[in-house]
Amino acid sequence: MSFVNTALQSATTAVSPVADALSYQRDDDASARRGEIVLDLAMRHAGTRTVRLRYELHGPADAPVVFVAGGISAHRHLAANDVFPESGWLNALVGTGRALDPSRRRLLAIDFIGADGHLDVPIETADQADAIAHLLDALAIGQLHAFVGYSYGALVGLQLAARHPSRLQHLVAVSGAHRAHPYAAAWRALQRRAVLLGQLQCADAQGLSLARQFAMLSYRTPEEFDERFDAAPEIVNGRVRCAAEDYLDAAGAQYVARTPINAYVRLSESIDLHRIDPAAIGVPTTVVAVEGDRLVPLSDSVALVEGLGTLGQLRVLRSPYGHDAFLKETDRIDAILASALRTGETA
Amino acid sequence: MSFVNTALQSATTAVSPVADALSYQRDDDASARRGEIVLDLAMRHAGTRTVRLRYELHGPADAPVVFVAGGISAHRHLAANDVFPESGWLNALVGTGRALDPSRRRLLAIDFIGADGHLDVPIETADQADAIAHLLDALAIGQLHAFVGYSYGALVGLQLAARHPSRLQHLVAVSGAHRAHPYAAAWRALQRRAVLLGQLQCADAQGLSLARQFAMLSYRTPEEFDERFDAAPEIVNGRVRCAAEDYLDAAGAQYVARTPINAYVRLSESIDLHRIDPAAIGVPTTVVAVEGDRLVPLSDSVALVEGLGTLGQLRVLRSPYGHDAFLKETDRIDAILASALRTGETA
Repeated sequence: MSFVNTALQSATTAVSPVADALSYQRDDDASARRGEIVLDLAMRHAGTRTVRLRYELHGPADAPVVFVAGGISAHRHLAANDVFPESGWLNALVGTGRALDPSRRRLLAIDFIGADGHLDVPIETADQADAIAHLLDALAIGQLHAFVGYSYGALVGLQLAARHPSRLQHLVAVSGAHRAHPYAAAWRALQRRAVLLGQLQCADAQGLSLARQFAMLSYRTPEEFDERFDAAPEIVNGRVRCAAEDYLDAAGAQYVARTPINAYVRLSESIDLHRIDPAAIGVPTTVVAVEGDRLVPLSDSVALVEGLGTLGQLRVLRSPYGHDAFLKETDRIDAILASALRTGETA
Repeated sequence: MSFVNTALQSATTAVSPVADALSYQRDDDASARRGEIVLDLAMRHAGTRTVRLRYELHGPADAPVVFVAGGISAHRHLAANDVFPESGWLNALVGTGRALDPSRRRLLAIDFIGADGHLDVPIETADQADAIAHLLDALAIGQLHAFVGYSYGALVGLQLAARHPSRLQHLVAVSGAHRAHPYAAAWRALQRRAVLLGQLQCADAQGLSLARQFAMLSYRTPEEFDERFDAAPEIVNGRVRCAAEDYLDAAGAQYVARTPINAYVRLSESIDLHRIDPAAIGVPTTVVAVEGDRLVPLSDSVALVEGLGTLGQLRVLRSPYGHDAFLKETDRIDAILASALRTGETA
């Protein structure tokens, strides 16, 4: 294991060097900063690879550190802040008065290994967890106050808790379990086939877009579609066009614009490779399950909590947003996070 | 309206003329026969078209006639019989002692309009129902004892009961409701996009196969996949391959071998065009719903039965086979059919 802190050398990221330098100087006054480390990572399926791990850190230097990780299309920028004012993927859950309050907690997030599309090999959630352990070393963070993971981030958190239990006091795993459910795995495998078909046809963007659109169906629920897309279909150029198709087109296009194909394929695969023995987890864990999640059935969350024994507790939400409830039911999720992070503090 | 009985001219079908002639001669001794009519059909979205409607009829000439219709990939051959010994799509529900006993009932089934791939226009379930009314005229069948429809066949039965209520005494609608659910419609719309992606550069079979594989996920349930495909994924040629992929490959290939692309696309669309006012149905109707059906939620079946008022009754099954329960839970379905067809007899 080796790493080089390259916080001032993030020319390969979307962040301008000026912003990075600024943020770095402001580090001591609780502002946000970005950086990256380069590390030699011993991967499960691809030998040792030199990889870059990009992070964003936001909050007082002396505050307890909470690591936040999202789905495969999430990234290191959680929410708008003074230094990086663009909207983040978790804006609604980060802010004053929230459980994830950057004035009281130091929030750490990364771009997952593979998210830049440069690593075209099978990637395990264990690889992500090991990379995060390297990052904590590099940042001299001995122990996280908590790791909050949603979807793929929950799987990575479970691996961190199994492989590096001393690095976190508490895990909150939302909409993610100890295994990929075989039905959800099949769904993702077909999405990857859509990508391959697009590549075969020299229509890479179209294939990735179609994959994303199928994924959207797995992230949401029939209840939501019934509320939003109940209009009768139209016949356009002799073909039937359903009410949801405009929405799905937009979702596909938006995704294609910001996602390298390799990133999508390798992180999608990574979910399917995920398998962990719940009994191997040595950290107090709050498992948050959503009834109606079409990717992570409640039965798997229950099995995870049972395997955790006295370390596990289960919170169940019912939401028309299914797997995406974490991003939508923000007040209810915030209440759960507040309770879980408080538990961590008194532990 | 006009039609021509061409029972002896089915050279365009897979059936040899010899077999047709044989079966036709045996008509009076309760054996099976095939035939087709050619009719001018006033279609909802394509003007008046000359279409061929192929049927198979099996059972005593004086027995009550039960029309049986299945999903979009079903056809006129329900079960093996003396004249057509090949296996049918409903073998397990047709036979001595079953509700669908060809020694006691005369079973009638068709290849849906559009199933031969020659009609490349939007097709409504109402068009199918009108074509069936023509066929009943041609066969001099004044009234069906019952219409048993599963999936797409249920939608067609509901249209027949709304548009031609005098032609049937009783309807059994299994796994089909008065509308396409918006989520299921979106799922099918994406399947049709997979077909289009395949057609871009001559990978038609691959596109249709992928569409069918996505459809298989909608026909089955996570419970079944969990039982059958719980093995860890493998890495093959550097890519992750999930346990269900062999099964999905086989399902896709089998479908491609027997399905014209136009047939798939137009019948898939036809499901999405389906919308009917339950109050317009004037026939006693047994609605059979499967809890866990990912295409037809129980709430839609309940809404259909409520709309039917005193004419409707609901039977609910719980099955790990979801939408395909009709083809799998054969003893339980047979018991429901026996009860429903008896109701018809005493009505």
